[in-house]
Amino acid sequence: MRAEIITIGDELLIGQVVDTNSAWMAQRLNEVGISLHQITSVHDNREHILTVLDEAFSRADIVLTTGGLGPTKDDITKHVMCEFFGTQLVEDSFVRAHIHELYKDRPDALNRLTATQWLVPESATILPNRVGSAPIMVFDEFKVERLKFKVNETSEAVTSDSQLSTFNIQPPKLLVALPGVPHEMKIAMKEQVLPYLSLKFKGDSLKPGDIVHRTILLSGIPESKLAILIEGWENALPSYIHLAYLPKDGIIRLRLSSYGEATEEELQAYIDALLPLINDYLLATEDISLEALVGRLLKQQNKTIATAESCTGGRLAATLNTQSGSSAYYMGSVVAYDNSIKEHVLGVQRDTLMQYGAVSEQTVREMAEGVRALMHTDFAIATSGIAGPTGGTPDKPVGTVWIAWATPNGTEARCFHFGAAREREQITQRAVTEAIVHLIKLLNTNH
Amino acid sequence: MRAEIITIGDELLIGQVVDTNSAWMAQRLNEVGISLHQITSVHDNREHILTVLDEAFSRADIVLTTGGLGPTKDDITKHVMCEFFGTQLVEDSFVRAHIHELYKDRPDALNRLTATQWLVPESATILPNRVGSAPIMVFDEFKVERLKFKVNETSEAVTSDSQLSTFNIQPPKLLVALPGVPHEMKIAMKEQVLPYLSLKFKGDSLKPGDIVHRTILLSGIPESKLAILIEGWENALPSYIHLAYLPKDGIIRLRLSSYGEATEEELQAYIDALLPLINDYLLATEDISLEALVGRLLKQQNKTIATAESCTGGRLAATLNTQSGSSAYYMGSVVAYDNSIKEHVLGVQRDTLMQYGAVSEQTVREMAEGVRALMHTDFAIATSGIAGPTGGTPDKPVGTVWIAWATPNGTEARCFHFGAAREREQITQRAVTEAIVHLIKLLNTNH
Repeated sequence: MRAEIITIGDELLIGQVVDTNSAWMAQRLNEVGISLHQITSVHDNREHILTVLDEAFSRADIVLTTGGLGPTKDDITKHVMCEFFGTQLVEDSFVRAHIHELYKDRPDALNRLTATQWLVPESATILPNRVGSAPIMVFDEFKVERLKFKVNETSEAVTSDSQLSTFNIQPPKLLVALPGVPHEMKIAMKEQVLPYLSLKFKGDSLKPGDIVHRTILLSGIPESKLAILIEGWENALPSYIHLAYLPKDGIIRLRLSSYGEATEEELQAYIDALLPLINDYLLATEDISLEALVGRLLKQQNKTIATAESCTGGRLAATLNTQSGSSAYYMGSVVAYDNSIKEHVLGVQRDTLMQYGAVSEQTVREMAEGVRALMHTDFAIATSGIAGPTGGTPDKPVGTVWIAWATPNGTEARCFHFGAAREREQITQRAVTEAIVHLIKLLNTNH
Repeated sequence: MRAEIITIGDELLIGQVVDTNSAWMAQRLNEVGISLHQITSVHDNREHILTVLDEAFSRADIVLTTGGLGPTKDDITKHVMCEFFGTQLVEDSFVRAHIHELYKDRPDALNRLTATQWLVPESATILPNRVGSAPIMVFDEFKVERLKFKVNETSEAVTSDSQLSTFNIQPPKLLVALPGVPHEMKIAMKEQVLPYLSLKFKGDSLKPGDIVHRTILLSGIPESKLAILIEGWENALPSYIHLAYLPKDGIIRLRLSSYGEATEEELQAYIDALLPLINDYLLATEDISLEALVGRLLKQQNKTIATAESCTGGRLAATLNTQSGSSAYYMGSVVAYDNSIKEHVLGVQRDTLMQYGAVSEQTVREMAEGVRALMHTDFAIATSGIAGPTGGTPDKPVGTVWIAWATPNGTEARCFHFGAAREREQITQRAVTEAIVHLIKLLNTNH
């Protein structure tokens, strides 16, 4: 089964919003055995939406759209769907009742615009949107004669007559229109759309597990050197197993993928053959975030951690705490932007700050040891650096970051130079990544 | 001028990577007067890339691609470009010298795979990639006879013969191929590509300021109620000014856009007419992040702030510290996951924790006041709640968050219910948003 996603909204094309929906949806679709062929982002523009719908159905079995389902004038997706599928809006009493229930404590959200949300396309199957007012619409099992949309019947010309003159849609092709609000889209996908698709195509062309990805995480080696190191192994891969290199922030994700032709076991055999070659650089044999990995190691080893942050400004703490259950190993952090906090809360000596400065090995060591003592943890990480864009000196240019790891066996510190060309956000992200990578290595070694 | 972006990479279509490049590029293109018509994401697949290149040129003047320029086997963009533009790879001595300079301290990154990076398409103009090895390629002013790519000359069939049988590309249409690594793409866009485009099309069809967006930030009103409130104003807008509603996390961004037909002054006049209607809900009259806005207010009023975080786990601190120069007003944070930290570092009374629990008005007030005293700041914000997915009780379900704001005029606290259906990440994000929104209101009132 092949799907395409069409994301609809001017905000995507002017860069006001990053499309995070598509990646999340792609993962979920892959899990149930549906591959994603293309993602297309278009404006809230009738002709453009009609054209890309037609094009998508010429290539895919399932088309998912997000966005344009709000109650305000700029949202036109529902009307364009009616036109595309030759149907009309009718009142849906279930959606009406649901919206009344949804807004029972918020009377100001129930008004004549909200009332347009319970008008739904007559030929669509409506799936409930438990947490929002926009109904999820499935156009499914529709008869070809229902597809009245033809270029000659519309008042305005569309981009290309020929593109719309053929009907690319035959059952069991289907379209699912989802809201663009990520929270609503995710719940609808998990609770409604994926079960619906799985049920509909069960035993047919849809086989969960058909699409298999296996990822290995590495650090400390350039991508090109890695590729040369494993060249013999890579050249021996069968053509139906795809290898990809994804370098980011000093980490390389090495991914093997198969679309229906290799089993999980077959991929595993290739992974097993690879591991001895890359052992020096290996972080994990799965596609796991560094924060999830370090959280699991800390939990397994029954160790605790605290952080003391200057240049990372809370980002290290926030990253570690994205993990559910982090309170089992994460005790707390002191974000010490101001030197007086470093001194009075973390116990960094005034002399150290005066003599070496805040961005120094001495300070960052005392910060790490200070927070470790303050919070009574096994490990502590401290960061201090110049995140920029201002604050750099010839001696300590923007991008200079000291990181210290205090452990039961003593304290280590390292200086990183992430480069003045990087933006503030990238420098703090690199610092967070390096802080966690080295802790993972410490935890792997300690054990 | 109309542009399209094509993002290339399997990782985008399997959801392993979120495409953040396109939104950033869209903003920059709009700034110089180039509108973005469509974003298309495709696999590292020769036929698919060839097809979407041809389609994009049928609609756009400028096509920008990202991704697929690495030295490893899975990256095929450069080869596909050669095929599309009927050219071949040749060695570029400047790129070669640049890469040697780039890796002079990293000899292990200089190897025979890296050497493939200084092979570039003969007909392309090469712009330097200051921070990476992948050259930026511009296919520009190319002659039509150079475009040897025809469906009959390729060995494999492509999706549709008719789609590729016409050449959609005539000067001054052009293509820019950029690396997918965000850091490299951004520097190349800022330093090379945008100046190149501006110079090339100067005085021609490209007019910076042609595309105008004006955004207003509001909070505390449902989208539908807002739309009814401003209905008269909205209906009086001329057809060439587009209005969009962007609700997210309790904030509504109301955006007016014009593509070459209205001046900045004309938009401003409509904004001026709008403001009296929405005064009660207004946060800002520009598209600014909440953290930038609160930072500016704190700096203007010469006030300082500290934070004490439980459920937000450092995210509030990290959000405030994304702003350059935040050290002028941001003193620090105590992330107090563990109750003993709340007690011993923040000075929350043991009795309070025992009697009311960590997620309570009493605790969060003492946390805010404690960190305000500890860090000697004017304001302090504290959070304590159940971010989930575990830890909820019938009394305090997942999504319950107490927030307190300690100010020179006393302390306020409020309880929020963000809903058990939301994910951990969404609950902490909502809490951070509400914490900052209320501080903005306090700062606006105080003044």
